[in-house]
Amino acid sequence: MTFTPLHDRVLVRRIEEDEKTSGGLIIPETAKEKPQEGEVVSVGAGAKDEAGARIAMDVKAGDKILFGKWSGTEIKIDGEELMIMKESDILGIMA
Amino acid sequence: MTFTPLHDRVLVRRIEEDEKTSGGLIIPETAKEKPQEGEVVSVGAGAKDEAGARIAMDVKAGDKILFGKWSGTEIKIDGEELMIMKESDILGIMA
Amino acid sequence: MTFTPLHDRVLVRRIEEDEKTSGGLIIPETAKEKPQEGEVVSVGAGAKDEAGARIAMDVKAGDKILFGKWSGTEIKIDGEELMIMKESDILGIMA
Amino acid sequence: MTFTPLHDRVLVRRIEEDEKTSGGLIIPETAKEKPQEGEVVSVGAGAKDEAGARIAMDVKAGDKILFGKWSGTEIKIDGEELMIMKESDILGIMA
Amino acid sequence: MTFTPLHDRVLVRRIEEDEKTSGGLIIPETAKEKPQEGEVVSVGAGAKDEAGARIAMDVKAGDKILFGKWSGTEIKIDGEELMIMKESDILGIMA
Amino acid sequence: MTFTPLHDRVLVRRIEEDEKTSGGLIIPETAKEKPQEGEVVSVGAGAKDEAGARIAMDVKAGDKILFGKWSGTEIKIDGEELMIMKESDILGIMA
Amino acid sequence: MTFTPLHDRVLVRRIEEDEKTSGGLIIPETAKEKPQEGEVVSVGAGAKDEAGARIAMDVKAGDKILFGKWSGTEIKIDGEELMIMKESDILGIMA
Repeated sequence: MTFTPLHDRVLVRRIEEDEKTSGGLIIPETAKEKPQEGEVVSVGAGAKDEAGARIAMDVKAGDKILFGKWSGTEIKIDGEELMIMKESDILGIMA
Repeated sequence: MTFTPLHDRVLVRRIEEDEKTSGGLIIPETAKEKPQEGEVVSVGAGAKDEAGARIAMDVKAGDKILFGKWSGTEIKIDGEELMIMKESDILGIMA
Repeated sequence: MTFTPLHDRVLVRRIEEDEKTSGGLIIPETAKEKPQEGEVVSVGAGAKDEAGARIAMDVKAGDKILFGKWSGTEIKIDGEELMIMKESDILGIMA
Repeated sequence: MTFTPLHDRVLVRRIEEDEKTSGGLIIPETAKEKPQEGEVVSVGAGAKDEAGARIAMDVKAGDKILFGKWSGTEIKIDGEELMIMKESDILGIMA
Repeated sequence: MTFTPLHDRVLVRRIEEDEKTSGGLIIPETAKEKPQEGEVVSVGAGAKDEAGARIAMDVKAGDKILFGKWSGTEIKIDGEELMIMKESDILGIMA
Repeated sequence: MTFTPLHDRVLVRRIEEDEKTSGGLIIPETAKEKPQEGEVVSVGAGAKDEAGARIAMDVKAGDKILFGKWSGTEIKIDGEELMIMKESDILGIMA
Repeated sequence: MTFTPLHDRVLVRRIEEDEKTSGGLIIPETAKEKPQEGEVVSVGAGAKDEAGARIAMDVKAGDKILFGKWSGTEIKIDGEELMIMKESDILGIMA
């Protein structure tokens, strides 16, 4: 089963802490709102501007991203836990 | 009797949990706001942009969708329970 | 006496529950905000967009509509109880 | 002394209940926010849109109007009690 | 010393109650937010619209105005008590 | 060290009460939000409008200004206490 | 590992108090919201305006900046503590 996010939403697979390599991005324990790592699974076609034209998305499937801990909604697709969030909830792309 | 949603509203038939096939989308019990599955019955002509032009809808009748649990308003048409919601309440399309 | 709503307002005659035919639209008792049925009596000329141009109304006199229970303001014209509401308070059109 | 409302404001003379003819508009006692009848005394030149151009007013001096009970500000001009309100506070025009 | 208001602000000299001539504008004691009379001392160059162009002011120095009681900020210039407010706080012009 | 404010921000040197000449601007003690005098030290390049173009600033270095008491953020540069605020926090220019 | 902020976000390395040279910028202890010094590590491509076009950023990598104490989100990249914030949280540039 495939899930296509609507508008400017993004489907994200969370990357668990123990999957991270040493020397990589580590979220400090004391942060108020800890950002989390994830991988973009699929993206919507983009929101529409005031004239009804699509605004292109800045992230694409496969991007490693950082997003706010409380962002998005959890779903399970084919037994896998995923997140749906808006592109504006994504802080940046890691490479 | 037919019901035509106004503007960017969508008429949705909720898909009950026990209708879902195994291996399909499962909503985790612990989610704060669990999304629900539904099928689009009919859609409005679209909202109008600032110049009064229609903004085309991204969903159409027959689409299998996911929407937030607390979205929309319940109605009964010809004895069937349905939901009226705005397209922006729809998280994405399943295929 | 006639009453012409201003801007994007609509004058609505509520359709009472006992007027409904069997097999028609029934509002479930448990809904948080039950929608109600009504008939459009008259409509305003439409709101103005940012450039001052009229945005055409999507409903017209005679339309059977569904609107949110807490929408609008009650008035009496020539002894008849009516409602004034904004078009955006109307959920859709029944036919 | 004359008073010219600024922008999209309207100067209104309230029509008292006992001036109304029988068979006319009667506001139900139980309404949450009872609308009131009034007559437009004078209107502003209109608000300006985002490009600084005037947006024409939809009401004119002499119009019989209905407005929300809590709308506007009371003033006295030459001993007469009047109201200043925005055009958007006016529900519609009676004829 | 001169004071030039910035953007759409207006410098106003309040007209005290006992300066008013009989038969003029009288504010009712019971009003929730009593408007006050004043005279425009100087006006700003106007706010800028979304394209950065000036929006011309509707009031000018010398205008007798009415403004909301709680509008504006009090200052003293050369020993005289004055008010600075936005043009949108002005209800209308008296003549 | 120089500090260049970003966007529509302004760097301001507060003018202390005892520096004021007699007959100048005096802030009444009883005012809810007392405005304060200051001198503009440096200004940003201006905010950008919706099309990304700069909106020119209305104040320049050296201007004597009046600003709301609670506006801005205090900083020390080379041992001197200064304020950073947005141009919209400035009430007007004294000359 | 590199981190590219999305839209109008900026990656910032905080400059600690004890790194500052004497005679430089000192934040007063009593300030309500103390600004902090930092150095821009990398910047996003810029937000998009209403027509979907990029709005260029005003800061660049290497800029010494001042930002509000409570702005941004803390992250660790390759063991180093950094901040992600929006450009609008930056008060100005020091040189």
